[in-house]
Amino acid sequence: MTKQEDQKKVLKKFGKEIVEQTKKGKNPEIEFPLRNLSNIVYDKKTKTLRLGNKKGTRNFFNLAHAKKFLQTVEVASIIKKELLNTGKHEHLRGVFYIAKRTIPETNINIVDDQVESDKAIEDLEVITGLSREQLHVSANKMGSMVGNIILKDSGDTIDCSKLGKGGYSIPSITDELTFKKVNAKYILYMEKAAIFERLNEDKFWNKNNCILVTSQGQTTRGIRRLLQRLYEEEKLPIYVMTDFDPWGFYIYSVIKYGSIALAHASEKLSIPGVKFLGITADDIEKYDLKKHLIKLNEQDVKRMKQVADYDWFKDNKEWQRQLKMMKEFNAKAEIQALSSRGISFISEKYLPEKIKNKDFLD
Amino acid sequence: MTKQEDQKKVLKKFGKEIVEQTKKGKNPEIEFPLRNLSNIVYDKKTKTLRLGNKKGTRNFFNLAHAKKFLQTVEVASIIKKELLNTGKHEHLRGVFYIAKRTIPETNINIVDDQVESDKAIEDLEVITGLSREQLHVSANKMGSMVGNIILKDSGDTIDCSKLGKGGYSIPSITDELTFKKVNAKYILYMEKAAIFERLNEDKFWNKNNCILVTSQGQTTRGIRRLLQRLYEEEKLPIYVMTDFDPWGFYIYSVIKYGSIALAHASEKLSIPGVKFLGITADDIEKYDLKKHLIKLNEQDVKRMKQVADYDWFKDNKEWQRQLKMMKEFNAKAEIQALSSRGISFISEKYLPEKIKNKDFLD
Repeated sequence: MTKQEDQKKVLKKFGKEIVEQTKKGKNPEIEFPLRNLSNIVYDKKTKTLRLGNKKGTRNFFNLAHAKKFLQTVEVASIIKKELLNTGKHEHLRGVFYIAKRTIPETNINIVDDQVESDKAIEDLEVITGLSREQLHVSANKMGSMVGNIILKDSGDTIDCSKLGKGGYSIPSITDELTFKKVNAKYILYMEKAAIFERLNEDKFWNKNNCILVTSQGQTTRGIRRLLQRLYEEEKLPIYVMTDFDPWGFYIYSVIKYGSIALAHASEKLSIPGVKFLGITADDIEKYDLKKHLIKLNEQDVKRMKQVADYDWFKDNKEWQRQLKMMKEFNAKAEIQALSSRGISFISEKYLPEKIKNKDFLD
Repeated sequence: MTKQEDQKKVLKKFGKEIVEQTKKGKNPEIEFPLRNLSNIVYDKKTKTLRLGNKKGTRNFFNLAHAKKFLQTVEVASIIKKELLNTGKHEHLRGVFYIAKRTIPETNINIVDDQVESDKAIEDLEVITGLSREQLHVSANKMGSMVGNIILKDSGDTIDCSKLGKGGYSIPSITDELTFKKVNAKYILYMEKAAIFERLNEDKFWNKNNCILVTSQGQTTRGIRRLLQRLYEEEKLPIYVMTDFDPWGFYIYSVIKYGSIALAHASEKLSIPGVKFLGITADDIEKYDLKKHLIKLNEQDVKRMKQVADYDWFKDNKEWQRQLKMMKEFNAKAEIQALSSRGISFISEKYLPEKIKNKDFLD
């Protein structure tokens, strides 16, 4: 992890280069990898979505570039002065409000819409190689964690095995956490907080020596980074549990391979080794869940086709088989359907059995 | 708080009465307060939305009632056997899957849709006087807490002043928490997790001796119940901080007065003493936020009119003045706009000043 001082140096260098170009009478120019679709590739070797080698430039004295150039420099200045110098963090929305002021002696705003400051921050990520988190800019806070892990967060030592039914509320930026003691065999990540509460009430993490992590909705960058760090620093296997539907499959694939929107940040977010633990088409037959199938709606069908067509699913026989069975069922199924087999069926039978048999999809 | 044993007794009595009616050869009947709009009143004295005195009955031998009668009894049986007897809790969605099975010797499902089991649970709430939480049925898990409070959750003692930037992840059911030590002058509840992270990073709760609570979106029953219990058991004032828009005003009013959908549960959820801390129309002028006003869209305008027309806002001069100013501005404003005055302006100036001057809306 780069230290705050290093991050400041990188931004300082960025500024200095612009000043030097100006002093030399040059048209100030910023070079950076392109982030448009034509430059996003699925790298089969590293199994990640990442940026290709195409570069773009932005010039100050170019009518089409001038405002974006200014926005990038202004946001870099805010991040350096207000965040890195003070050690504070600010939300994307807050950065927007700080940047939203008129250019001196004009009535033109530096940014009018959050999209503009967001883009400037993404630009800075690719220009500097620092992640948004390293630039101290946060987004949504989501998710909870419990299990056999003791971590350090801002000077506090937090034992996630002693946090009751609630658990540790995951911060939006997890880069700065340190892992003090991890005594777990694997991490179970689940899309649904209801399942997290079921497994936590059953002390699943205690009986099976693991860590439970959930989002409440989408998997935030904070959660992805936390999972990736635990995977890399603590060498913990990670199993992902979602519904049997195209949305669940995609949640899994984003954690594993990355996403198109964040291809530039794949290196710090994607986890190629992550495995899918359920619900699969085979589970539906094996665990007698057929009567709980829910007919696919129009959006599901459309999404199923898109997912089947993504490079990282297309070349994968096992996933194609799953998607084919989904099409044949013309139906999806929820994790919660396991409750029909008994409230604790998931923690006493389903999960232990699948984990013991290494019944994962890759 | 009623103990689990008491809850079992109440459900047992409910079942026994039906059995006794049957034994006497009567048409089994359940009586309960009506939950439709015509029986929801805003009680000016207690300042809560609550059910009126209208009662309805449901009979087993009545074609229009039979299925709902069965659903209510079946769900009561699931709650007694699977939840209260085992001490476990289940999510609304899980209860649906447990109840979703065919009536023996027919191919008719007891419930086909979650709405049916949800309604049965609400029926049981009004029939038994027990809350959904006391019946061990959970819903969404949301929100975080930090500050000067030590609580007990399922045997674990949790010090919310030692949970770093993340905090305590609030469980979906908070009725079973116990408060061990509360050393705080008030609770600050905020709609936005980004503001929670700002105030937590600034150690606002430490400097001002308070507790910070946030949802991440809507205020769940779990959070409302937690706030109400802290208000009643620990006599802590509660201040609510939302955006200056009709949606924010409504979030506040639900916490204070209750909601139409949950009027039957008002007694255990609403907090008439809660106060609104911001953002107000006056703040926008006083703190120079006018340039950050955002034009109301069509939905905002519609909602503004609805909110202004609710009984609990209609009779309140101060709130009518706020809504009038919103109409005059034809604009809303976000809490985050305060960042334009400096990242920590909210924790160093805005909040301390407003709290010191008791600058609340009631």
